[in-house]
Amino acid sequence: MTLALDSAAQDLLFREARTANTFTDEPVTDEQIQAVYDLVKYAPTSMNQQPLRIVLVRSPEARERLVRHMADGNKQKTAAAPLVAILAADNEFHEELPVQFPHYPQAKDVIFAERPVREKSAHFNGSIQVGYFIIGVRAAGLAAGPMTGFDAEALNKEFFPEGDHSVLAVVNIGKPGPDAWFPRSPRLAYDEVVTTV
Amino acid sequence: MTLALDSAAQDLLFREARTANTFTDEPVTDEQIQAVYDLVKYAPTSMNQQPLRIVLVRSPEARERLVRHMADGNKQKTAAAPLVAILAADNEFHEELPVQFPHYPQAKDVIFAERPVREKSAHFNGSIQVGYFIIGVRAAGLAAGPMTGFDAEALNKEFFPEGDHSVLAVVNIGKPGPDAWFPRSPRLAYDEVVTTV
Repeated sequence: MTLALDSAAQDLLFREARTANTFTDEPVTDEQIQAVYDLVKYAPTSMNQQPLRIVLVRSPEARERLVRHMADGNKQKTAAAPLVAILAADNEFHEELPVQFPHYPQAKDVIFAERPVREKSAHFNGSIQVGYFIIGVRAAGLAAGPMTGFDAEALNKEFFPEGDHSVLAVVNIGKPGPDAWFPRSPRLAYDEVVTTV
Repeated sequence: MTLALDSAAQDLLFREARTANTFTDEPVTDEQIQAVYDLVKYAPTSMNQQPLRIVLVRSPEARERLVRHMADGNKQKTAAAPLVAILAADNEFHEELPVQFPHYPQAKDVIFAERPVREKSAHFNGSIQVGYFIIGVRAAGLAAGPMTGFDAEALNKEFFPEGDHSVLAVVNIGKPGPDAWFPRSPRLAYDEVVTTV
């Protein structure tokens, strides 16, 4: 009992959850995604900047626009998934900071005035939030199929024509279908990853 | 009951967990960190590349070397935490790929031959794993205090003199102490983050 998290939750989120490549026809509802968001929104980001933005691709027309820019090996499963979410970093997250980080409302102008500083921070924190989102999808009893094989520049233009966003990942979401995954690949051992000084 | 994860686990990992700034004296054991790692190692990364590397800073000498390169506002709490972990991306993760991603052993040389490609992928996936690690610390019933205020170049040289690593975050770990946190800052509403097309 080294962990406080109960064993069923450990299985649900980590040990039995797998990246799915096929899904059943069961729909994923807006209520489910809202429940996922309303859970993972509490996980931390630097100065509470919360740069993650999410586009749910529901219409056949939008799905077609998305699939066109996916890598060949990802097209078929992205076309077939019950729901697809595009996860992006908002490089203009600093506009929200005076409200979101009231401890230091000057941060918007003092720290994040320059675009390269914002981009680096948005990509880092947005990527951490991609991790939280994947765990959240699993918390909803759903399988995630996160992908990075796509034309990022094309997706930025196609789905974020306004503002300044960077697509980080595209995630298929649903209940796992037949032959949903490959055998699990190995994981690095503790001693290969962790050292003590 | 929109979520499958039980309510106590939701609280432990997200709703009641907070970024801690003070800690009790209770030690954090290697067994606890190994249990955290052996849980979160199963969460997914692109092509199973697992670029995250962790240095546990235990000796007073190493703690002193670390604190020197932290931002002023982070020095005191980093000096006082029961355990501090340095989280870094290994930009040479591709050396492990032929074993870790047996579906496509050529990926090491075909996709990841060039350093900028590796760096981008290591930073993105390492950052996702930072998110998993924070959740894992909470799963162990501990509080995390993740920080990004430090001299990253100096920490790279100080703690990763060999190979090619990029420090992404430094995380204080322990049981929360007196006045461990500020009041929780606001979170963006669902409609500010999620759109549907």
